[in-house]
Amino acid sequence: MNYNQKMLRDDALKGKTIVVTGGGSGLGKSMGTYFLELGANLVITSRNLEKLQNTAKEMEETTGGKVLSVACDVRNYDEVEAMVKASVAEFGQVDVLLNNAAGNFISPTERLSANAFDTIIDIVLKGSKNCTLAFGKHWIDKKETNKTILNIVTTYAWTGSAFVVPSATAKAGVLAMTRSLAVEWAKYGIRHHAIAPGPFPTKGAWDRLLPGELKEKFDLAKKVPLKRVGDHQELANLAAYLVSDFAHYLNGEVITIDGGEWLKGAGQFNLLEMVTPEMWDMFEMMVKSKK
Amino acid sequence: MNYNQKMLRDDALKGKTIVVTGGGSGLGKSMGTYFLELGANLVITSRNLEKLQNTAKEMEETTGGKVLSVACDVRNYDEVEAMVKASVAEFGQVDVLLNNAAGNFISPTERLSANAFDTIIDIVLKGSKNCTLAFGKHWIDKKETNKTILNIVTTYAWTGSAFVVPSATAKAGVLAMTRSLAVEWAKYGIRHHAIAPGPFPTKGAWDRLLPGELKEKFDLAKKVPLKRVGDHQELANLAAYLVSDFAHYLNGEVITIDGGEWLKGAGQFNLLEMVTPEMWDMFEMMVKSKK
Amino acid sequence: MNYNQKMLRDDALKGKTIVVTGGGSGLGKSMGTYFLELGANLVITSRNLEKLQNTAKEMEETTGGKVLSVACDVRNYDEVEAMVKASVAEFGQVDVLLNNAAGNFISPTERLSANAFDTIIDIVLKGSKNCTLAFGKHWIDKKETNKTILNIVTTYAWTGSAFVVPSATAKAGVLAMTRSLAVEWAKYGIRHHAIAPGPFPTKGAWDRLLPGELKEKFDLAKKVPLKRVGDHQELANLAAYLVSDFAHYLNGEVITIDGGEWLKGAGQFNLLEMVTPEMWDMFEMMVKSKK
Amino acid sequence: MNYNQKMLRDDALKGKTIVVTGGGSGLGKSMGTYFLELGANLVITSRNLEKLQNTAKEMEETTGGKVLSVACDVRNYDEVEAMVKASVAEFGQVDVLLNNAAGNFISPTERLSANAFDTIIDIVLKGSKNCTLAFGKHWIDKKETNKTILNIVTTYAWTGSAFVVPSATAKAGVLAMTRSLAVEWAKYGIRHHAIAPGPFPTKGAWDRLLPGELKEKFDLAKKVPLKRVGDHQELANLAAYLVSDFAHYLNGEVITIDGGEWLKGAGQFNLLEMVTPEMWDMFEMMVKSKK
Repeated sequence: MNYNQKMLRDDALKGKTIVVTGGGSGLGKSMGTYFLELGANLVITSRNLEKLQNTAKEMEETTGGKVLSVACDVRNYDEVEAMVKASVAEFGQVDVLLNNAAGNFISPTERLSANAFDTIIDIVLKGSKNCTLAFGKHWIDKKETNKTILNIVTTYAWTGSAFVVPSATAKAGVLAMTRSLAVEWAKYGIRHHAIAPGPFPTKGAWDRLLPGELKEKFDLAKKVPLKRVGDHQELANLAAYLVSDFAHYLNGEVITIDGGEWLKGAGQFNLLEMVTPEMWDMFEMMVKSKK
Repeated sequence: MNYNQKMLRDDALKGKTIVVTGGGSGLGKSMGTYFLELGANLVITSRNLEKLQNTAKEMEETTGGKVLSVACDVRNYDEVEAMVKASVAEFGQVDVLLNNAAGNFISPTERLSANAFDTIIDIVLKGSKNCTLAFGKHWIDKKETNKTILNIVTTYAWTGSAFVVPSATAKAGVLAMTRSLAVEWAKYGIRHHAIAPGPFPTKGAWDRLLPGELKEKFDLAKKVPLKRVGDHQELANLAAYLVSDFAHYLNGEVITIDGGEWLKGAGQFNLLEMVTPEMWDMFEMMVKSKK
Repeated sequence: MNYNQKMLRDDALKGKTIVVTGGGSGLGKSMGTYFLELGANLVITSRNLEKLQNTAKEMEETTGGKVLSVACDVRNYDEVEAMVKASVAEFGQVDVLLNNAAGNFISPTERLSANAFDTIIDIVLKGSKNCTLAFGKHWIDKKETNKTILNIVTTYAWTGSAFVVPSATAKAGVLAMTRSLAVEWAKYGIRHHAIAPGPFPTKGAWDRLLPGELKEKFDLAKKVPLKRVGDHQELANLAAYLVSDFAHYLNGEVITIDGGEWLKGAGQFNLLEMVTPEMWDMFEMMVKSKK
Repeated sequence: MNYNQKMLRDDALKGKTIVVTGGGSGLGKSMGTYFLELGANLVITSRNLEKLQNTAKEMEETTGGKVLSVACDVRNYDEVEAMVKASVAEFGQVDVLLNNAAGNFISPTERLSANAFDTIIDIVLKGSKNCTLAFGKHWIDKKETNKTILNIVTTYAWTGSAFVVPSATAKAGVLAMTRSLAVEWAKYGIRHHAIAPGPFPTKGAWDRLLPGELKEKFDLAKKVPLKRVGDHQELANLAAYLVSDFAHYLNGEVITIDGGEWLKGAGQFNLLEMVTPEMWDMFEMMVKSKK
């Protein structure tokens, strides 16, 4: 067995229809592909229909599953409602919403305009809220149960982080929504989960975020105790578990999958890792000789 | 000494100018009044200029301090920038921003429209962000230092809460902003703090939120281990400490002042408080007799 | 698919040897049994060898796997070292340590003697530490890698809880150990995880903890948003995932599996669930009529 | 006003008797001295009576207050009970317990013996528990109220930290005790607080912990966003607030005073602080030119 192999029993998601926002590329595409392999139907959404359709075609060919592409700007509630309708029209019902669509600016905060900041709040927080509200109202109205909403957040949703402040505020909001509705909507048979992924690089995204020499300096693997970045299948395994019935008794929980990255930064004495065994030997001798 | 007496040394805030958004009533007014008593100049803002001016007059008469009223919808960045200018024009500089303006709907989430939800995000999260960004850009541009931003959040910023989900998402965002900019803007001499108050009832606000018989059922003091609600001066004491230079080495910290309310709800076995001493006696005997 | 079915692919734990402390009964037995079904070798330990051997026999008959019973008081480091040796002698190597042995007193804290309090710290915190230290030293010394330590904690490890204070302090310590060594020992190829289970009743344990009428009053399912207690297989599924290679990129993380129980207690307005739809209708009308 | 000036009104602690464990030197001495200046009576304890008596004499001369020295190994419950009695005999009653006594080993965990690890648990966790239990039983038995217990913890009580694992587990336990008893003992009029201090160097302690060249490498101020270590008076101000009646509505709360140190480590993108303004300019141009 190996960590980048596929974990769940065959057909673990058979009969489920799963909507992945931002599902046309990157991690959304990786998770969606694995859901298809496990027997799910898939709806992928983003603003770019052509890109979605290319991805959908590729996914269908690889997995033999069924994928619906729906163009949708999650900031616009009317478009979200239309997306809900289109998904239900195609597959009869939807069982899982994966709020994966996101945006980010890496920048000193004082260089951002108020509008730029708002854009990230609108995509990430209002977008996740729009999809959650539209599906929630639909499920509650139709009295459908055994539904799951999975939100992709980040470790800086609770620690905060400089230089990505709009994303930090928005993701923190999504996490609070996860925990709030996990309690409030449990009575309707709707569960909520969140994943906080560490570094799972996707070529395009990381190139855009960290151009040129900055990428060199900011070596993602170095900050991770395990000294490696994550493999997309590892995230897909966790996501598939959470949207499956096997995770039924998890509710409102955020699971960090980052190799220990944030803990390594947070712990006060963790930077003593730079001390060599020889230095430790020396200190021990010094301490003993004082006694 | 008594908990509702005034804590700081005289003149602890002498020479500081403090802006309190939502400062015309409730907790904002209580904190602002104490700041004046400690020697600060005050700017209070809200959308209702007439109400502000009445409050300002009352505050000036009570404390002998100076209060500027500025009408400002914090959702509108242009109005916020104008408010910054007006404050600086009046007092020469501003030293402290207290993001206190807020809004809330208590409602099952599925009964809310997408627009209603957005309104709370706009007031609470975007409003706090607008004020933070406008003052931050101003201070950084002018190279002014020793500045403090204090944000009022809530314990459900991290636990989440049913029935106040828009507020939970927005306040969580404000908390993440606090922690992020505490790190990012420390180099500019700008510190960040947050307070998460438990129940500090203000007549108007609680009547609006919890009308009629609901208020009876939802007895705020009952959920607090100390069996009482908070006194406004207690919150004012904490806020004055945080915006004073005495709290200079706190940075990015959120302080909960709720009598232990959220912990009482959170701990798994806390409801055993209903067990009487006589029952505990009995259990002890039973356990012993089994041995 | 159903939440109490078995999740992982066959042979997911093939070739792994897993030590479960407190493995003779309850949740430890349930997890151990599933590990055997997935192909692992098992070592179970507790102070009662006869009970262990009965369990081992039953497990081997049910699963066809191999189980070693080792009597061990985890409070005693010498016994723990002997247990490590016995396990390695039998299976060649050990890959996973599951710190599951625990003790608890449910009692008002002022009724506990200092000694009684110490007993729980010794079993839970020092016991987990002893096993962690003995296996860690062994693995580091032998330069064996790809090892996992899984600790069973509880949600009151971070919220605290009245009436179980010795357990709260000890489990909090175990959680801190999880997070600390996740960072420190990652370089040796040793990962750390924790699970915080909500109510997964085991007949014996709950009868002992909550005798008689108290059990009636303290209905475990009521506090859970999902309105049910957990099924042992659900916990076993999560534990098997965490000790498998599939969870390789999780490190230092504690996963709560409690149906949302602690969040329901923690959120300030969650008790408004007692408000009926008719009351919400009425409040909405009142609010509208005021405008 | 300056951050290292004294904050509270004169006589803020008049009439209170405060026990500070580990009060003979370092931060315990600094806090105790300020308590005396504010009108409190003081009891200081540690294992070294001579050192205590020298400190007591110095404190009395500086402040004009009254100080009782009691030799006490907090690991030994009998000694703790005797200390309670001696304190009450001298001052009539005790109002505040400050659990400040601690121990620490900075070392790779695999180099520690099981016994060395236990020693830290015994001093820090069992010691704090012993004092808490002895005073709690005394107060509850005598029906005395308005009592406060203040525990000194650390930020790695919740983040964990490599190389100080015994201390991390023990301090995490103390934090859980704070939160648990804040709820459980509120009904007896006993409140609980905790402080998590960042770097407040005390010459002796830091020299022992970080000998020689390690101290150079491990520059404490560098990790703090504010780029400085804390001043003892800053901690004393916070501690005096918490043990005074002014903090009556705080309960179960841990307050971090570390200049933002732990948040700076924790946030994922915080290390982008190494990016210069010129580099940010360049990135912005690159991004714009792509559009």
